[in-house]
Parts: sequence; structure tokens; C-alpha cells
Amino acid sequence: MELHLITDGCQSAERTADILRLIEPDIDMLHIREKHLSAAELYEFMFTVSERGCCSPSKLAVNDRVDAALLFGAGTVQLTSNSLPLQLVKRTFPKLRCGASVHSLQEARAAEQAGANYVLYGHIYDSVSKPGLPPRGLSSLEELCRAVSIPVIALGGIQPRHVRGIRRAGASGIAVMSGIWKADDPAEAAKEYRRMLIT
Amino acid sequence: MELHLITDGCQSAERTADILRLIEPDIDMLHIREKHLSAAELYEFMFTVSERGCCSPSKLAVNDRVDAALLFGAGTVQLTSNSLPLQLVKRTFPKLRCGASVHSLQEARAAEQAGANYVLYGHIYDSVSKPGLPPRGLSSLEELCRAVSIPVIALGGIQPRHVRGIRRAGASGIAVMSGIWKADDPAEAAKEYRRMLIT
Repeated sequence: MELHLITDGCQSAERTADILRLIEPDIDMLHIREKHLSAAELYEFMFTVSERGCCSPSKLAVNDRVDAALLFGAGTVQLTSNSLPLQLVKRTFPKLRCGASVHSLQEARAAEQAGANYVLYGHIYDSVSKPGLPPRGLSSLEELCRAVSIPVIALGGIQPRHVRGIRRAGASGIAVMSGIWKADDPAEAAKEYRRMLIT
Repeated sequence: MELHLITDGCQSAERTADILRLIEPDIDMLHIREKHLSAAELYEFMFTVSERGCCSPSKLAVNDRVDAALLFGAGTVQLTSNSLPLQLVKRTFPKLRCGASVHSLQEARAAEQAGANYVLYGHIYDSVSKPGLPPRGLSSLEELCRAVSIPVIALGGIQPRHVRGIRRAGASGIAVMSGIWKADDPAEAAKEYRRMLIT
């Protein structure tokens, strides 16, 4: 199973890179999700994170900005309902991997039909990023995993102890934010997630 | 001389299109500058403006979003200091025309060196978009036009009566916002600009 780490918009590029350098072997993809940055700042952020964090651009997934992903040589772009139409992105840039952020089975099916390489689905558990919104839970994850044939990455409030249930539900990986960035020891947290993912 | 019209972020796509349909033959380029829109909304905006406004995508310049320009088949992207690096955009997408928004002679020279197809320079006169900022004036425009060999499009508070002076300063065109959008009769205003540009 894959471990995706999503930047939370609260760390500087330098701190992001410094943590990343410690955990890079343990994570499969780093999502750059810094909505408050201009395109120029985003490019700088990616450059610092990749260089100082010793992380290959191919391991980066850029949120929303297809152009930043292409210019930087990032492997993946992560598209949401606020992004350019996934089908057109795939048609225009067939080599670029496209992840789709989805919140329902219908959206997941539509994303698969449009050519998404995987979906990010959540939130599964209570999440500090989604206060007050009821989590979607394991059974909806299981239903969604059965409904599509592309990989499903589960997101939202996931702790290492949840990994076994998520695997049983059929997900191909998990995506984490605060579980690593807000951990007392991010490197240890990443290793703990990794241990649960491979056992 | 060219007439560029820049959307001001205050009109709906429908109203923009309805005005555009009346003045399309009189303008050389329509800049889509709708910073408050998501990428999905921007794409919709461009689609409506182009279809309903009977305007070829090749006549559109998309502000900042290189990806939206490429997906839509727009002829041009307009880059600012907040955008992705112009040199890299040109290197990655050599067929895409790139305009650079500049505010000094140094920036104009840098943009030319980076491969810009033209620069947009302003603001030349007092502009409702730049309240309180002193205008740069005709003499600075003239100096800048001498310093670069790519076309210079002058911007900011330009009225039809200013066009002669701007041409004499060496500019290749003008860009207008409120002079057309806020005119009592936008179609008549566009024709008046056009008359001044060709005489």
C-alpha cells in the first residue's frame, strides 16, 4: 500500500523540506497543496522542497496547477472539482498522471471514466481539516473501492491503527497530513505508518 | 496599432460575451483576467465568452494560468511577476505566445531576454484600477519603447484622445479596461479607440 503525504499550507518550504529529507524513503508521493501561494511562489516552494528535501520531482503531486506540474516535471497533478476538467487535461497531456479528489461514489466513477489514474477519497475518519463534517467511514470506502477499478487512496484522520481496516476495505493506500506534520516526531510517525502499510 | 481589451473581473461571462460580440472586429486581443475564479470557473468563463461572444480562442490571452490557455487553445498567456517563470514557460511550450506585464524598463528588458513576445506596460495615465499610484507617463513609455525591440502595449487610463501621443512614444498598441466596460456605449467606445488607432 502507498503512503501519500499532503502539505498542509502551514509549514515553510524549508521546514517541509527538512522533514521530507528524513522521511522521503517512507513516503510514495508528496502532494504540494499550497493554495495561498501564487504560481511564482508555488514554483519556488516546489524547487526548495525537491532540492533541499532530496525528493525526485517524479514523486511530487501538484494540487490544481497543471502548468506548475508540467514545468517542474512533477509526476502527477491532483485535480479537484475546482480544477480544469480532468478529461481535457488527460487529452492534452496524456503522459501526466492525474489524481482526482472525490467525495462520493458517483464522483469516483466519473473520475475513472474521465481517465483519472487514481482517486483520493475522504474523509474517512474525523479530521482536523474537516471540523464538524461527519466522516464517511470504512463501509463507504469499501463500497467505493468495489465500484471502481482504479486505485483508491483513503484520506482523512487516518492513524496508523486504522491502516488494517482501510486495507481490508480495498484501498490501495492512505494520504496523511496532520498525522505526520503535527506529530512530535514526524520521522517516527512516518515509519509507524510505513510499518502498518507493509504488514 | 493593436487594441487589447482586458476583462475587469466585474462582468459576468454572459455580459462580457454580449459586449464582445458587438466589438469583436474592433479588438485584436481579449485578456481574460478573472483572478477570483477557480480554474474550473475560468474554463467555463472562457468557453462562454468565446462561444457566445463569437471570438476565436486564438484571440484570447489568459492571465497567469498557462494550463487554462493550453487546454482551451488560447493563443496567448499573460504572465506577471506572480506567475510561473516566463523563460521556463517558453521553453516548455514554445508555441504559446507569452506576454509579460512589466512596470519598469528593467523588467521589460528582462522579459525580452526571457523570450516574451510583447510587454504590457503601465499605468501610463491615472487609472481607476490604480488609485493613488502616480502614473508613469508618456516619457517613461517612450524610454521603454526605445530600450526593447519587442512590441510594447501601453496600459492604464488610456482615452481615445491619448492614442496619438502613445503612438508617437513608440508603442505598438493600447490595452483598455474601464474605457470600454464602463462606457455608456461600449460598442461606440471600441469604435472610437479603433478610429484613433488607425488614423
